[in-house]
Amino acid sequence: MSVKLEIAQEILLNLVTVMPKEKVVLSECWRRILGETIVSDIDFPPFDRSPLDGYALIDEEVAGATPENPVILQQTDYIPAGGIPNKPVIPGTACRIMTGAPLPPGATGVIRLEDTIVDGDKVTILDGRGAEKNICLRGEELFSGEEVIAQGTVINAGVMGMLAVLGKSRPSVFCKPRVALIATGSEIVPVDFPLTPGKIRNSNSFMLSAQAAEAGAQTVLLGNASDNVDEIAHLLETAADCDVFITTGGASVGDFDFISEVYKKLGITLLFDRVSIKPGMPVLAGIRDGKLYFGLSGNPAAAAISFEQLVRPVLMKLGGRKVWWRPHVKAILASPFNKKTGAKRFVWARCWQTDNDILVEPSRAQGNGMLKSAMGANALMVIPENSPPLPLNAEVEVILLADA
Amino acid sequence: MSVKLEIAQEILLNLVTVMPKEKVVLSECWRRILGETIVSDIDFPPFDRSPLDGYALIDEEVAGATPENPVILQQTDYIPAGGIPNKPVIPGTACRIMTGAPLPPGATGVIRLEDTIVDGDKVTILDGRGAEKNICLRGEELFSGEEVIAQGTVINAGVMGMLAVLGKSRPSVFCKPRVALIATGSEIVPVDFPLTPGKIRNSNSFMLSAQAAEAGAQTVLLGNASDNVDEIAHLLETAADCDVFITTGGASVGDFDFISEVYKKLGITLLFDRVSIKPGMPVLAGIRDGKLYFGLSGNPAAAAISFEQLVRPVLMKLGGRKVWWRPHVKAILASPFNKKTGAKRFVWARCWQTDNDILVEPSRAQGNGMLKSAMGANALMVIPENSPPLPLNAEVEVILLADA
Repeated sequence: MSVKLEIAQEILLNLVTVMPKEKVVLSECWRRILGETIVSDIDFPPFDRSPLDGYALIDEEVAGATPENPVILQQTDYIPAGGIPNKPVIPGTACRIMTGAPLPPGATGVIRLEDTIVDGDKVTILDGRGAEKNICLRGEELFSGEEVIAQGTVINAGVMGMLAVLGKSRPSVFCKPRVALIATGSEIVPVDFPLTPGKIRNSNSFMLSAQAAEAGAQTVLLGNASDNVDEIAHLLETAADCDVFITTGGASVGDFDFISEVYKKLGITLLFDRVSIKPGMPVLAGIRDGKLYFGLSGNPAAAAISFEQLVRPVLMKLGGRKVWWRPHVKAILASPFNKKTGAKRFVWARCWQTDNDILVEPSRAQGNGMLKSAMGANALMVIPENSPPLPLNAEVEVILLADA
Repeated sequence: MSVKLEIAQEILLNLVTVMPKEKVVLSECWRRILGETIVSDIDFPPFDRSPLDGYALIDEEVAGATPENPVILQQTDYIPAGGIPNKPVIPGTACRIMTGAPLPPGATGVIRLEDTIVDGDKVTILDGRGAEKNICLRGEELFSGEEVIAQGTVINAGVMGMLAVLGKSRPSVFCKPRVALIATGSEIVPVDFPLTPGKIRNSNSFMLSAQAAEAGAQTVLLGNASDNVDEIAHLLETAADCDVFITTGGASVGDFDFISEVYKKLGITLLFDRVSIKPGMPVLAGIRDGKLYFGLSGNPAAAAISFEQLVRPVLMKLGGRKVWWRPHVKAILASPFNKKTGAKRFVWARCWQTDNDILVEPSRAQGNGMLKSAMGANALMVIPENSPPLPLNAEVEVILLADA
């Protein structure tokens, strides 16, 4: 029962709901997903203010001032940052004002300190041009009632600053999805165990936990299980509070492919058991009580691609994001791709920009093992199904991996 | 004493050393910077192995097999994943083998289960093509003694998996730089305080802490200080174990510009007190006991750009990275940029790819406040010093912000 990738993605995304929300202290919100739409309850700046240190005055009075023909005004007030004006500016007067301080009534411009000479309360304006531009108007950046940040926005540095401006010291964010990870296979030993004949270390759990983190999820590493239905089923049940369950290994055809039996034992409804992509064809998905289960291949190349194409979009939607897909661009092959492609193929690649184009080339060492290719990749080349070998300069679609 | 940006960057980077290292459990290493060069002490795969479930056999014996003219072999052994071979494959025999299991001596190929019919210990091979390709050779991906991952590499999913393959359960990583942040200015109130006349909330600390996190640093939020030299100096001293110290506010010319006085009081040697960029001209840097101090503007636009151009490269080098700069590309202006530019200018922007070009456009709302422009930006446009207004379709340099 091999389904097309796009069908598999649709099946999964239709079954995914969105995580509940929690309130988190702002300093911990970087990279979290905003769970509420933020409407400003203030004008910002909250008052007309000076963007620099200088003199607030009536701009028309000083417009023609030059070092040769300066304009002399009388200082009548002094407003520090955080202070408030005591008296209005009237003709012939100026008010000393600090960066960020509220503009006094009557002032229509500000001249910066460097363009003045101060002697007691006498202020000589040497250059009066553009005074009217040196004002930040109340509400210039935000007005009260304005929708400023949409639910589902990733909290980057700018969003973080804006939440602070608006006093959101504990914004609502979506809870991080929790992903349970189990590596199955009697050949697998824990990472800090010595290797004995026939054994390899569990690398999939660590690779996938990083992929999950990149998709905004937390992982719970449940360790290794041998090829035993009861053991795998028991381990899965120990992590019942998780939101998504992933096993690696035991997903392809053969005597030791236990995962479909595990699903039967646990009452997990099988959604599909292979997807027509390469690598990553053997992959099971199931659902129970609204939670998704994935049985990925034990081969790291296949597991990584299945995760990228099937699990990642699920985690992105679950996590409350508006965009579930990575950016795609068109790129030009910098070296021929000499393989015929049956099922849609994904190839770890490096792309770079030249004056005219984005070029792309498969990572060296595109072996079955593939960790070396994945380490240095910044993109995945997408080769459509039933493609002939592709020549130098052929145009290919490329998925950009931001994390590289 | 205004210095050019490139000079300021060079001064700072020459003074920065690299953080010490710590050993961290592998599951916590995502996005950390590798502190050691990893040399493989194993071949990987550690043995010739099967990439699929099937039969190990002598490839020449079955090369011509078809459904009409199948080849029949006798099964003499059975190797599960994690098992070891008991007997060699000799002519006329085949060995059942699972994905990842070691190839038995004598076998020169593997035929997948789907291309066989099994009846007791009689195995009928229906398609014998390409059997020799279905072997992962020992050392195909890694050989013992090979330098696999360089010190300074960012630990992404592929690197994480590779470290696991090599048994690095507690790799050495560079300690995260610790950044102390203080917002100064008597107009600043904490984010969860009500606004009173003349006051605004502290947004810089939160914005900068996110920028620091993106550069791999931890931040210590020391809160707000009023415009008082002793108070600021005292706060800075409370965080003596930090590696980099940042204040915002009090950095431009004027009565309330305290930071240079703070530096004098604390015996911090001033490196420069303005850099010819816009925004971000007013910025102090100092050094004491090998640690860098930055006095950024209180204006978020200026503070963000100063951080991006001066503090971020310092944190990247301090954190042990090999690459300190963000990727730059050439882009085409999708709308004219109508301002004359004196000092080198940085403009928050959005860029996107079309069939032929990367286009770029300033974010809307490029106000003095700028948080709104920064929120939606995925790039910074770089306008060279002394540029005239730039027309539609002019080529500009663009810095890509990965975090967007």
